[in-house]
Parts: sequence; structure tokens; C-alpha cells
Amino acid sequence: MLDWGVPFGEATVDRLMLVGPDGEVKDANGDPTGAVNTAGYNIHAPILAARPDAVSAAHTHTQFGTPWSANVEPFRALSQESCAFVFDQAMFDDEEVEVLSVDGGKRIAAALGDSKLCVLRNHGLLTVGRTVEAAVGWFVMAERVAEVHVKAPAGSPISDESAAIAASTLSPEAAGWRVFQWLQRNLVPDTSVVE
Amino acid sequence: MLDWGVPFGEATVDRLMLVGPDGEVKDANGDPTGAVNTAGYNIHAPILAARPDAVSAAHTHTQFGTPWSANVEPFRALSQESCAFVFDQAMFDDEEVEVLSVDGGKRIAAALGDSKLCVLRNHGLLTVGRTVEAAVGWFVMAERVAEVHVKAPAGSPISDESAAIAASTLSPEAAGWRVFQWLQRNLVPDTSVVE
Amino acid sequence: MLDWGVPFGEATVDRLMLVGPDGEVKDANGDPTGAVNTAGYNIHAPILAARPDAVSAAHTHTQFGTPWSANVEPFRALSQESCAFVFDQAMFDDEEVEVLSVDGGKRIAAALGDSKLCVLRNHGLLTVGRTVEAAVGWFVMAERVAEVHVKAPAGSPISDESAAIAASTLSPEAAGWRVFQWLQRNLVPDTSVVE
Amino acid sequence: MLDWGVPFGEATVDRLMLVGPDGEVKDANGDPTGAVNTAGYNIHAPILAARPDAVSAAHTHTQFGTPWSANVEPFRALSQESCAFVFDQAMFDDEEVEVLSVDGGKRIAAALGDSKLCVLRNHGLLTVGRTVEAAVGWFVMAERVAEVHVKAPAGSPISDESAAIAASTLSPEAAGWRVFQWLQRNLVPDTSVVE
Repeated sequence: MLDWGVPFGEATVDRLMLVGPDGEVKDANGDPTGAVNTAGYNIHAPILAARPDAVSAAHTHTQFGTPWSANVEPFRALSQESCAFVFDQAMFDDEEVEVLSVDGGKRIAAALGDSKLCVLRNHGLLTVGRTVEAAVGWFVMAERVAEVHVKAPAGSPISDESAAIAASTLSPEAAGWRVFQWLQRNLVPDTSVVE
Repeated sequence: MLDWGVPFGEATVDRLMLVGPDGEVKDANGDPTGAVNTAGYNIHAPILAARPDAVSAAHTHTQFGTPWSANVEPFRALSQESCAFVFDQAMFDDEEVEVLSVDGGKRIAAALGDSKLCVLRNHGLLTVGRTVEAAVGWFVMAERVAEVHVKAPAGSPISDESAAIAASTLSPEAAGWRVFQWLQRNLVPDTSVVE
Repeated sequence: MLDWGVPFGEATVDRLMLVGPDGEVKDANGDPTGAVNTAGYNIHAPILAARPDAVSAAHTHTQFGTPWSANVEPFRALSQESCAFVFDQAMFDDEEVEVLSVDGGKRIAAALGDSKLCVLRNHGLLTVGRTVEAAVGWFVMAERVAEVHVKAPAGSPISDESAAIAASTLSPEAAGWRVFQWLQRNLVPDTSVVE
Repeated sequence: MLDWGVPFGEATVDRLMLVGPDGEVKDANGDPTGAVNTAGYNIHAPILAARPDAVSAAHTHTQFGTPWSANVEPFRALSQESCAFVFDQAMFDDEEVEVLSVDGGKRIAAALGDSKLCVLRNHGLLTVGRTVEAAVGWFVMAERVAEVHVKAPAGSPISDESAAIAASTLSPEAAGWRVFQWLQRNLVPDTSVVE
């Protein structure tokens, strides 16, 4: 996880902290080597434990995902990108919006199940991936999907049959990984900072 | 078409690929020289084949055009710029949002007919022009029109009679070409990168 | 007026053209010296003729003013800044959204009357001032007022009595002039480009 | 307070003016040393007088706080950050939107009571803190909460019981102070300008 207090814009590989399964940030001698956001640990650790296929979970509070989550409704097939999620999403309809314990994270993991996306009620979006790239790629795509939902409150979704056809190419893990490649190419022209 | 994976911000003339009518990207010897977005080929090739007057089609997923398209409604004469489209638009009311084959593009071309704009349901906007400049100019103008529609859901359009008068100067091809000139002058101060 | 085709971002004093009362841009010998947007002339000339107190009118198509104008409703006292306009605004409820002749501008001038703001139906905002600074200052303030109206469609205005008290300090010409000073100080750190 | 007319972007410690309890900006000899926004004095002085625990109040007109205030409704527990305010907010349901006298500020102070946030009807947000950092941190957090409310007009809040649990960690003064630290680290990489 990112060293506590480091802004995303300054995040580089050497600012990442290795967190033990018990939430401790220590070196081989048991001495503290840094600190992490406890709520982050409470959310991520149980998810990664429950989902051996996932190596990464992404969550932050965003311009559209967080407002959308206040509606406590799943995504509908309102746009092409929505089809990546409509058959592979979960709702955490639980009022623990500040995840104060690992128990809260366990309940999120239970709600998430096998899905790639969980809408955390009144909180925001959470995605998982088999790679860091896919977790982040899905998160950004889900944010764009939330934007469509917020801006088209009376929109008409396509049918499940049609959404399933689109999902066949948009929903596989490789599609999320690809979104990340585009983001990286656009936003991090000099990738040496993260290598 | 743009070389597969090159971000719009890095698009220069030497990153464009010549795509054959069969979707192949090959040199004179039949050897592959690059790759393009297959869905892009599936959409653009049938449109250009069906519309000999058009040399370019523009389509991407945008902040207002994509949310608006989820309403499955044509533009109304809500703003001056809307008048460029209200008598020259089509709706692709088809649930193929991920265009997986040339057949999908043929159906888009059939829906488009002789119009300059096609609203692709739950997908986004698509415009065509007799020049690349007009196709792009119409696309950007249509995006601004979509913005007005999203932000004025209860707006009152002007009458068809009045919209037709405004369309007489706003709808001709030269008006779309002119929008592009303004965009270029604002966004690409050094046009040598695209010459 | 600005030389035809020069983007706002490149507007400097030496790019302004002196336009005669007949819309001609000529030197003392009657030779053309440039060109201006005809619709701009059609709108501005009759307003300046009808309002000898005004030396400038401001109008462009904006993110909130244009969508708001599609509602064909005057501003209400929804925010502090709204009070500068609620007793000093007019509605051009006319479907000529592309002002093709001086006659259209004369009708706008008639609708404007003695007000500082005219909402041009399905078109956008227009403000006048006794100085260029005030016309621009009012325009930008009106755009912020339109933003509040678009984002608070169910808002409750304050009473006319209370709005009148706020208007006593916010509505006088000097308040619009002052808005411009802040804009200039924020946006044009080096004012030598416009001096 | 900031010297009258200095934009926020140029605000540095040496541009701040010390304002006397009577609103005067004078040196030891009684000579004027600068000028401040009178409305600012009218609002801030009575609040600081009524709240000896508060050393700072923050108020400006914002993209979401001002539109939200036109609804004349308190925040609901629509998002995690909302929980910092739902038990610690007040409504100034008074139509004095341009605070022309210290009396107006006294009524705001009375409405504020012991809360950290006061929604000023048709005007905007106002927050107080025991430190400048907390006042500003709460203000920015309240603006984000207003954004969620504007974008999720039909949102469902969590229960008071659940909101109270989240408030136990999000509402204390230290949480507002911490928001400021993040803002400073993101926005002012070189803090020497404010030291």
C-alpha cells in the first residue's frame, strides 16, 4: 500500500509499503518501517484473502461513482462500457461507510463474491483484478459508467441479451488490463517513474 | 485509421495506417504494416462504402454525447447549434453497442441514410463529412448540442419553422468545416505536427 | 470587434477592428481592412444604437447560460449574485436564434430595454455595460448565476424584498466593473498584452 | 484577512491584514494600512466573537455548495464524508444573502451555534475550526459533500445509527485538520510561500 499521507500524484514504487497479513508494517526485525491507512487495510486485506484469483483491489471516492452509490442501485446496460459490469457486479447494501474493522472488509468481500465490481452503498466503487492493471482499468471504466448513469437518470438500457453479446468482448480480464495501458500511455508519458 | 493503441494526443500524420477495403493493413507485398481497432473498421468501412459523398466519419465516447444517447431520443431545437442537426439526424435504435462485425456497421450506415449525424443508442454520436474537417467539426458541435440537452432536460425547443431558418446557414457542410478551423486554431497552435 | 477568426485566447488590442455603423470595415479611403462576424454586427450595432448609455455588449455561447436559456425562464433570486439581475433582466422570447439581419438585433434591443441582461431564448446570455469592463463583468457573473439555476432546478428563491436589499449593492454598474478587475487580475497577470 | 482585491492565487502571508475588532485596518498610530472586504468582516467578526473555541471561519461561493444552498436543506448522510456534518450542521434560513452589517453576522453566529458547518441559504457554505487548517479542511470536505447531494438528488441516506458510527472518526477536529494537510501537500508543493 502507499505510504500514509503520500498523495497519489507523488506515488512512486519506492513509496509503497509492504503490509503484513496482520496489518503491520515492519521489517524482518519487527521494527516499524512506515504507516498505512488503516481503513485501506481493513478493506483490502479481507478481499484479497477471500479472492485468491485477485491480486489487487481499487477503491477511492470519485466525482461520479460516489454520488451514484448514494442511489443504492446497480449499473444498468446504459452504455457500451456498462456491459462489462452488468453481469459481474455486486451491491454492498450495508451502512458501514467508514470501514473501522477487518470485519467490515469481510462483509464487503462476501458481498463482492466472484464479481469484479462492488458498489459500496453511500461510499463509492470498488473493483478487483488478477493484475494491478486490470483492477485499476476496471475502476476507471466503472467511473465512466457511473458518469453516464448520473447524467442520464431517465436512460433506457439495452436488453440483457444484447448486453451479454457486448459483455463477451468487454468483460474479460484482458479488457480491463487494456484500459490501464491506454491510461498509462496518456497519463504517464515517462513510465520510468513507476518502473 | 490511427495505429492501434496510439493515444489521440500523440496522433500525427505518420501514425496513421492505410486500411484496405477488407480491413487488412498491409504493404504492397501483402506483409502486415500495423494494426487498427477492429470495431473502428467495422463501423467506418460500411459507412464510407454507403456514402460516396463522405470521406470521413467521426465517432468516440464523450462526456455528453454518450449519456445523451442512453435516452434514445433525437436532438430537439434547444439551441442555435442544435438547428444544424434537427433536420439532418438519424437514430440507430439497435442494441449492438459493441460493433463486432461489418454487418453492424452496415446497419448503422442504413440508419444514417443521407444524414450528417447518427445517434447510436446507448453508445454515442457519429458524424460524417465530405472532408475530415467537416466530420470532426460536426462531431464537436454535436457534443456541445448534447451538453445542452443533458443540462436542460425540461427545455423548450423553438418551432420547426424557426429552426429551418437557422439551419439554412448552420447546417451546410461549410459550417462544419469552419468549426474545425476554430478548433485547430485554438488547440493546435503549431499545425506543423499535422501537416 | 475582434478580427474574424481570431480565437479569444489570441485576442489583443491590435487584433480589434473598427466597424462602421453600416457594418463596413474600411479605412479612410474606403478600402477593406479586415472582416468581422456578421451575426455579431447584427446583434451589437442595434443594441449600441438603442442604448446610448452602453458602450459595450457581451455575448457568447457558454456552459450554463446557453442550456439555461433553453428553459425560457428568467433568473430567480436563487443566489446572492442572482440579485444583481432579478430586477434588471429581460427575456428575448423570439425564435430567431441565428441573428441573420440587423432587424433581429433591433428586436433584441427592444426586448433588452433598459436592462443590463437579456436572456436570448435557446441561444444564451447577453449583457451590456457603460464600460467594456462592466459588460464583461456582468456576463461572467450571469454565467455563474445560470450555473446555480442549472444545478438547483428545485431551488427556493428569497423574497423580492430581500433580493432588493442585496441588489442595492450588487446591481450598480460599479459591481460589474469590479468583477472584471478580479477576472483580469486572475486571468491576465501580465496586462501589458491588452494595454 | 486578505488584503482587499488580492486573488486567492496570490495570497501569501505578507498580503494578510490584521483587522481590529471594530473592522479598522490601522497601525499603532491609527493610520490606515490597507483595506478588507467589509462583508467579510461583517460575517467573520461576530462568529469569532461568539465562538471563542474557533480561531477561523471559511466561506466562499463554490461550484456545488452555493447551488446546494438554494435548496434550503441540510446535508443528509448520503456519503461517508457527509457523516462528518449531519450531526454538526446548522441552517441560516435568513434572506440576508449580502451581509451588509455586523448584525447579519450576529444572526449567522446565532444560527451556527456550536456547529462546525452552517449552510447559508441561497448563499453558500460556512465552516469554523479551532485552527485555520481545520476550518479550511471542513470547508473543502463540505464542498465535496454538496457535490454528492447535487449529483444524487434522489439518493438514499444511511440511518442515523450508522452515520453516528462513521461520525465518531470523521467528525472530530483532527479529521478536518488532516484534510488540510492533504490539500496542502497536493496543491502547495513549495510551502515556503505560506510560511
